[in-house]
This record gives sequence, C-alpha cells and structure tokens, in this order.
Amino acid sequence: MIDNPYYGQELHGPYDIFDAGSFEFEDGGHLPDLKLAYAVYGKLNRKRDNAILFPTWYSGTSKLTEQIYVGKGRALDPSKYCIISINQIGSGLSSSPHNTPAPWNMARFPRVRIGDDVRAQHKLLTEKFGIEQLALVVGGSMGAQQTYEWAVRYPDMVRRAAPIAGYAKNTDHDFLYTDTLNEAITSDPGWNGGWYRSREDVHVGLRRQAKLWSVMGLCTEFFAQEQWRALGCTSLEDFQVGFMEGLFTQMDPNDLLCMAWKWQRGDVSRHTGGDLKAALKRIKAKTFVMPVDTDMFFKVEDCKREQKLIKGSELRVIKSLGGHFGIFGFEPAYHEQVDRHLSELLAIDA
Amino acid sequence: MIDNPYYGQELHGPYDIFDAGSFEFEDGGHLPDLKLAYAVYGKLNRKRDNAILFPTWYSGTSKLTEQIYVGKGRALDPSKYCIISINQIGSGLSSSPHNTPAPWNMARFPRVRIGDDVRAQHKLLTEKFGIEQLALVVGGSMGAQQTYEWAVRYPDMVRRAAPIAGYAKNTDHDFLYTDTLNEAITSDPGWNGGWYRSREDVHVGLRRQAKLWSVMGLCTEFFAQEQWRALGCTSLEDFQVGFMEGLFTQMDPNDLLCMAWKWQRGDVSRHTGGDLKAALKRIKAKTFVMPVDTDMFFKVEDCKREQKLIKGSELRVIKSLGGHFGIFGFEPAYHEQVDRHLSELLAIDA
Repeated sequence: MIDNPYYGQELHGPYDIFDAGSFEFEDGGHLPDLKLAYAVYGKLNRKRDNAILFPTWYSGTSKLTEQIYVGKGRALDPSKYCIISINQIGSGLSSSPHNTPAPWNMARFPRVRIGDDVRAQHKLLTEKFGIEQLALVVGGSMGAQQTYEWAVRYPDMVRRAAPIAGYAKNTDHDFLYTDTLNEAITSDPGWNGGWYRSREDVHVGLRRQAKLWSVMGLCTEFFAQEQWRALGCTSLEDFQVGFMEGLFTQMDPNDLLCMAWKWQRGDVSRHTGGDLKAALKRIKAKTFVMPVDTDMFFKVEDCKREQKLIKGSELRVIKSLGGHFGIFGFEPAYHEQVDRHLSELLAIDA
Repeated sequence: MIDNPYYGQELHGPYDIFDAGSFEFEDGGHLPDLKLAYAVYGKLNRKRDNAILFPTWYSGTSKLTEQIYVGKGRALDPSKYCIISINQIGSGLSSSPHNTPAPWNMARFPRVRIGDDVRAQHKLLTEKFGIEQLALVVGGSMGAQQTYEWAVRYPDMVRRAAPIAGYAKNTDHDFLYTDTLNEAITSDPGWNGGWYRSREDVHVGLRRQAKLWSVMGLCTEFFAQEQWRALGCTSLEDFQVGFMEGLFTQMDPNDLLCMAWKWQRGDVSRHTGGDLKAALKRIKAKTFVMPVDTDMFFKVEDCKREQKLIKGSELRVIKSLGGHFGIFGFEPAYHEQVDRHLSELLAIDA
C-alpha cells in the first residue's frame, strides 16, 4: 500500500465503503476483500424505483459526479432521485493497486474488466439497497462503458440508459490512444515495472500523460479560443503545467494503468461471442446515446453506429468546446444540454 | 556522423547536392558547409518561368514528392514544368544532425527555423538555376509552412502558392502535439541527450513516436473502415508494427527532433513583429489554402482563419479518410482532388 493523500475523504468525500468480499475477476485472479467506494445523493423512496446509478470515468470520482451532474432543480435532482455514484475499481477510492494490501497490491493487482465493475456494483445495489430496478444508468467516458455493460448484462434492471461520450465496444483507434497514455507512464524508469515507492518517482511519466490528455482530451478550438481561461489559467503554460500536470502528478500510476487496461477492452459483445449487434439488441432500456461533437476519440460517427443498433434509442449530440473533457462541465451550456436530454429521458415512461 | 542506410540514393534517389556554403542560422549557430539535397523533375524553359518548388514535410523526401505528386498528365507534369523538390534541413538527406561531421553533429546541430530552409532554398534556386520567379510553391504539412514562408518572405518571387495541410503560424495545440512526439524519443534512455551510437539504441522511443503518429496522423474513420488494408496491411498489428514502427525505426532520432523543433515554431508573423494579419497581407501569390477535412491537428477551421487574411485566396478543402496522412496520397480520390485544384491554380494568370 502506498500513502497518497489525493485519494481520500478530504478531497473526494464524503463517501462510504461497501465490502464486496472475495471477488473473482473475469480475466483471472481474485481479491480476498474487494471494496467499493460510493456516494449517495438523495433518498431511496419506498418503492425503491427512483435510483439512478452514475459510475465514474478514468480518474474521475463520485465527488466529480456530485459537482458536475447533481443538484436541486437539475435533471439529477437529489430531492427526487436517489443518485448513487460508485467509484470504479482502480479509481483510487475503491480497491485499486495503490490501496490494496500486499500481496495483491501494485503490479500484482488483478486485471479488471468493465464487467467486473458492473458485477460488483450489482452486488452493492441489490444487497445493500435492495434495488431491483434502476430508473437510469448514466455515465461519461468509462462511465458510458459501464452504462452499456449494465444495459446489456442486466437488461431487465435498467429502465433508462444514457452513455455520454463513450463506446459499447471500444475502437482500434481508441485502443492505440490509450496505449500512448500507458506508455507515457511505463517508459518512466521510475515506474520500475509497477514497483515504485511513491507516485513522485513516476512524476515525469505522469507529466507526459498529462500532455497527451491536453492534445487528445480537449480539441483544437479549445486552444484556438484559449478556453483554458475559463478554468482560471492565465497562459498556455499555466494550463499545461499548473492545471494538467498539477492534477495528474497527484494520481497513482498503477491505478491509472489499471483503469486504462479496462478501458481499452470495454466491449459488450463479449456477452454474444463478439456479435455487437446481438449484444446491443439485448438492451431494453430507453437509451439516449450522447457523444460530444468535438470529442477526438469517442467520435460522434462511431457512437452513431452503435446507437443505430439499439432499439428505440436516440442520438443526442452535445455541443462543447471542451472535446472529450466537455464532460467535466466547465461550460454552462454543457449543463443546460445534459440536463435537457436527461430530463426528457427521465420523463419517458420506460 | 552516423551511418544510416535509410538516408541515401538507394531509397530516396536520385537527388543532387547543392553546397550552400557557410550558413548562419536565425536562432544562432552556423554550419561551415550547409548542403541541400534536391531532385528535379522536368526541365527549366528558356524564360525560366516554369519552375515549381516542392519543399518536403516531416520525415518526407523528394522521392515521396515524385511518387505522390509528379507525373505525366498530372497537375505537376514534368513535361510542362520544372519541378524542384528540395529536402528540408534535418530531413536526413540535406544537412542533418546524423550526417553532419563533428563538431556540429548530433545534439550540437544548430536549431533550424523554417526561414533558414527558405533562405537556403532561395540561394539554390537563384544561384544554381537563375530562377527569378516561381510559377508555384506547393507543399504539405511542414512543406506548407515553407510555402507560406516563401510567399511572405519573397512575395515578388512567388506567383502562386498552395499550402496543403499546414499553417502559416503554428497553433498551441499543434505545438503540444509535437512535444509528445519529441518526448517519445527523449524519454528513451538510449537517446542519451542526443549522443547515441546508433538509431537502434533509440528504437523503443521511435516505436512510441510511431504510435503517436497512428493516433493523431490518421483519423478515427481510417481505423473504423480498416483503411490500413489499402496499404497492404493484414491486421491492425501488422499496420502498427509492420508498417508504422517499421518505417519510424529506420529514421534518425536527432533528425526528427531537428525537424520537429522547426515545425513547432513555424510562424510567418516573425516578419511583422507578431502581426499575422500584416504578414499574410504581404503575400502577392494567388493562393489556394488546401486543408484535409479529417486532419486532426492542421484543422480546416484554423486554416480557414489564415486563408481569410490572404488577399484573393481560396479555401479548397480536400476530402480524405487518411487524416493528416491523406497527403501521402494512398487514395486515388486524393490525387484527383489535388490535381484538380493545382491545375486550376496553375491556369490562373497570376
């Protein structure tokens, strides 16, 4: 275990811990004591039919869910819904390479699949809350991957689904991009095959990853219009070093690699022998597929191809100058669009 | 000097060498004996008014110019025009870190600016050929940067200009992207501050750069439609390893870094104290600005902003599934479009 103050109640709380117990992973390996960190906004009603699940994205946490997507008067209104945001395995809050006791720690942490997360989340929602149906599963990026996995794996449990800026089956291009994120870390001699003493030993690799995120995570218009000013940055360098490197150098390298491995292999067609059409046909949820128009790796065209395979689904493209990072909601117009689409979806009798 | 069989007459010839002599670089430093490798397709007429200059792109050579853009019956027809393709400084054929004798070799090679190339090319064209006017300057990517520099620096000498997939002033986003290409190399311990014994010592860094090119150099639709099949590749891995890594691991790391440093700082507004509008106002050439629609870093929007500042210019967007690498012309439709635009441009009495 590595002490990392970035991952804790102070920055990302309050959250609770669910003890999922002994857990077998789809790709082999197990953890004797899998823990999921989750936060609840709002209350479950008596019929237990107002629950909304919001899984997290790469490097995201339930705190971001709350800050960006939840609020009184918004689509995800905690006075109407019980919004449960579960931090993914590898997030640094739930069981992750850096916080798991030896011998299953660090480079020895199991390979995790999107399906592992969804099975563990299912255990939490059913055993802890007695939830039988979800009014909505919604998430961005890797949260979209989990959303698709939920809708395909547990079709009777998901009434509505809103995958934002993510794929049901990851693409070759996206796999290569994620490789470059991984190589930014693993090329740092300080990474040492995953057996570093502190994330600070790998700060150069983390800085490289931060730069790759700047290039691909945003979009060219973000830079052309100097939208980093909206984040309070005073120059390009202030954005790149002060904001991006400042953020990523706090994170744990193995945790990021754990999530990235999972991200690269997200694919609901694993349920149907590789037949994506058959997998998406299983979905019973009313589904709004919501790509961001300027996203450089979860592209509208690719999302649309998947959307067309989902019965009764709709494509709702979100306009943003933030590229993929539009989902961080630093534009007021993003909130307005997401809320409008989600409110409409929640109003449908699904 | 490093022996590298990739850079030579066998793979990239025939070409000639112009001895530009002692050369002072804009950013300081000099070479006692700058050499430019160039190839000529067609013959200069008596009036010396049928010359077309085609500078090269990052990692490109005059051989590629010939193979992709020159041909009987095409816009750049050697039976009508005298097409001179000059390999840029750092290309590996002209003076470059790997082929320059000590002490100006390797990490001690001067920093090169686009303006240095254009001044050296001017010397070649005027002293060697007695050319006073160019019917056209055309080039892709870094060749577009040189095209813009020619049109701004020597406005009376350039009758027509066709910058393909490149900027007059590089963008912040593109600067960051190029940084990631550089860091792929410099993060390899084998690079050793530029003092490696063989490019093979840096093959891991070159492989990482090749992956970044796959992610950003092409486009998502290239992968979605498995366009690598058009290159004769049988699988994604065959494309990534066999083609991309196979190509980049032959190149010299310092040569690539030399070109990238130049690319990052391409900016015609250096002539006008940072005023891009004033710089582009200098252009007298009839100009077609030709971005590729799927290019991920030389974007149509950014090219259009520049085009609007050039008097009498036109925006001619080229459709391609190759992203930036569309300029390699592996699609028949690319040739057809480029030839149509360039023929039209050459037919204008400029």
